[in-house]
Amino acid sequence: MGPHPAVAAIRLAVRRVLHDVLTDLTVPQTAAGRTSGAGPRTAGSTAPLVLVACSGGADSMALASALAFEAPKLGIRAGGITVDHGLQAGSDLRAAEVVTRMTALRLDPVESVAVRVGRDGGPEAAARDARYGALDEAADRLGAAAVLLGHTRDDQAETVLLGLARGSGIRSLSGMAAKSGGPGRTNRYRRPFLQVDRQTARKACMVQSLPVWDDPHNTDPAYTRSRLRHEGLPALEKALGKGVVEALARTAQLSRDDADALDSWAAEAETGVRDADGRLECAKLYALPPAVRRRVLRRAVVAAGSPAGSLFARHIEEVDRLITGWRGQGAINLPGRVEAQRQGGRLVIRQG
Amino acid sequence: MGPHPAVAAIRLAVRRVLHDVLTDLTVPQTAAGRTSGAGPRTAGSTAPLVLVACSGGADSMALASALAFEAPKLGIRAGGITVDHGLQAGSDLRAAEVVTRMTALRLDPVESVAVRVGRDGGPEAAARDARYGALDEAADRLGAAAVLLGHTRDDQAETVLLGLARGSGIRSLSGMAAKSGGPGRTNRYRRPFLQVDRQTARKACMVQSLPVWDDPHNTDPAYTRSRLRHEGLPALEKALGKGVVEALARTAQLSRDDADALDSWAAEAETGVRDADGRLECAKLYALPPAVRRRVLRRAVVAAGSPAGSLFARHIEEVDRLITGWRGQGAINLPGRVEAQRQGGRLVIRQG
Repeated sequence: MGPHPAVAAIRLAVRRVLHDVLTDLTVPQTAAGRTSGAGPRTAGSTAPLVLVACSGGADSMALASALAFEAPKLGIRAGGITVDHGLQAGSDLRAAEVVTRMTALRLDPVESVAVRVGRDGGPEAAARDARYGALDEAADRLGAAAVLLGHTRDDQAETVLLGLARGSGIRSLSGMAAKSGGPGRTNRYRRPFLQVDRQTARKACMVQSLPVWDDPHNTDPAYTRSRLRHEGLPALEKALGKGVVEALARTAQLSRDDADALDSWAAEAETGVRDADGRLECAKLYALPPAVRRRVLRRAVVAAGSPAGSLFARHIEEVDRLITGWRGQGAINLPGRVEAQRQGGRLVIRQG
Repeated sequence: MGPHPAVAAIRLAVRRVLHDVLTDLTVPQTAAGRTSGAGPRTAGSTAPLVLVACSGGADSMALASALAFEAPKLGIRAGGITVDHGLQAGSDLRAAEVVTRMTALRLDPVESVAVRVGRDGGPEAAARDARYGALDEAADRLGAAAVLLGHTRDDQAETVLLGLARGSGIRSLSGMAAKSGGPGRTNRYRRPFLQVDRQTARKACMVQSLPVWDDPHNTDPAYTRSRLRHEGLPALEKALGKGVVEALARTAQLSRDDADALDSWAAEAETGVRDADGRLECAKLYALPPAVRRRVLRRAVVAAGSPAGSLFARHIEEVDRLITGWRGQGAINLPGRVEAQRQGGRLVIRQG
């Protein structure tokens, strides 16, 4: 008799990602980004190490169990990191408990890393920044080839809705990537469960008798994501049907591919709309499709020093009106003390 | 003292659209599509006619009132149509009442058109098909240059969420167009209120003492849109903040432009990936960005006879795997008895 279907599902998802990690390790890396501490896999080198980031919750405990099961079969060492955010009394004890549970799964090395959560960008962003900082540090220090994250399809659906609420276009609808980089690292982070339901992960823990910890933050209505999870998304499902989570996850993938294609078009178009002195020609910008033109403008504004995170769709729309609705407007002020103005058929964008 | 801000807002929105309608009438039309019964505007011709589609609800009553106010100032005749869907007892009396109200606004001509709602595609789609059929017929018969529709920014937000639930990509996120065609007509339908809140329209009716009728369908939980309006969207707003409606409406516009740009890229790319005999070359398809390749494949499948409405993202993904994940798969069956298979480095798509 094979494993329970939920266990089979999580193991399959992890196995696929581990195969992909091994492929990336053996294929020569051309991009400068990929310089994992694990180094290229040559004869005689030690087995590559893959870490799981584990909070002790059902998703990441399921992930840890699947990694522990699959890694040895592929000659991979499996380790685990838990991050103590220090946001609740007793979080250190909790982290120690997660270390014990990961050790029981025979992960090795296993570590708890304490971080200090700042306040930049709100509580969720600050916690995330601190967490990834700690994971990056641990991955570098331990020479890990990859770090697995337990985000499920439900998390992905929530992320798409959060992006939708920003109203800033399809890039913000593309959710979390199956692979993403840490600083200077391509594809360090992997999310094997983006196609796996939260319910499946929980079930897999149950049938494997793995204790799980439900983070009280996940049900705290002070957190946007928590409100979305417990009120917003269920109400949407009630209105639109049970397929909403799957539809949102598919939207993420399609939007990501669309955004990538349009970004590549904009990068190519940008060289074609500059004059001999490198200045943007308004007439050539005008001839571009609006979607491409706005991306070219965004690139130019960011290149001039405007912080990408502070630059909203409405800013770019205003710059775009210098091209499409020219009636002698003055200079437009943009985040990061960047100014855009039209001068003699050229668009001049510079930091003041 | 000027009009109430809500009245000023709806009038401004209508004025802009009427200006645009006049521009379209005077600019020579190059596309075959634009052959409005109003004909080109030449000296001595009668004033162009613009119709409002009016259910008697707050949105379309506000629209009717703004059209009645603005049209004469621009030398436009303003008329109104109400559609009697015959779905509720007394709907004919209701339609007659709406005719009276439109006449009181001095719209002329004013008509009630009775339709029979079929059952194709569910109750909402069937009612919509019947409604647009009646509006097209009336616009043709009366020689209208345009038909104004009262969809608000809230309707747009709901449409985006309905599209999101399909999970079929950014085209379905692009909501309703500010201009769209009837059969053989470019830009016949105009939606002046896509940037106007439902609340503003209601307020404008109130301060103008216009009686409005609240369609019981709008609160009937048997209708998906009604559930979305009264439960889904409010829950999302509670989770994500009040800006959700605006964010969804902006997403619609951005997605529409993005989808248009990618469609044009795909149309251009398609010619480049065919061999001398017009067959699709797998190697060239492989080299395209995934977003463009999937659109090229979709075009080819539709051109082979697959009905666009029955063709889902998962169908195209399966065809795409003939290119990106080739391991000797057999022919893939698609809606409309269309088959796709790989033969000697070519992709053959044809109706069986």
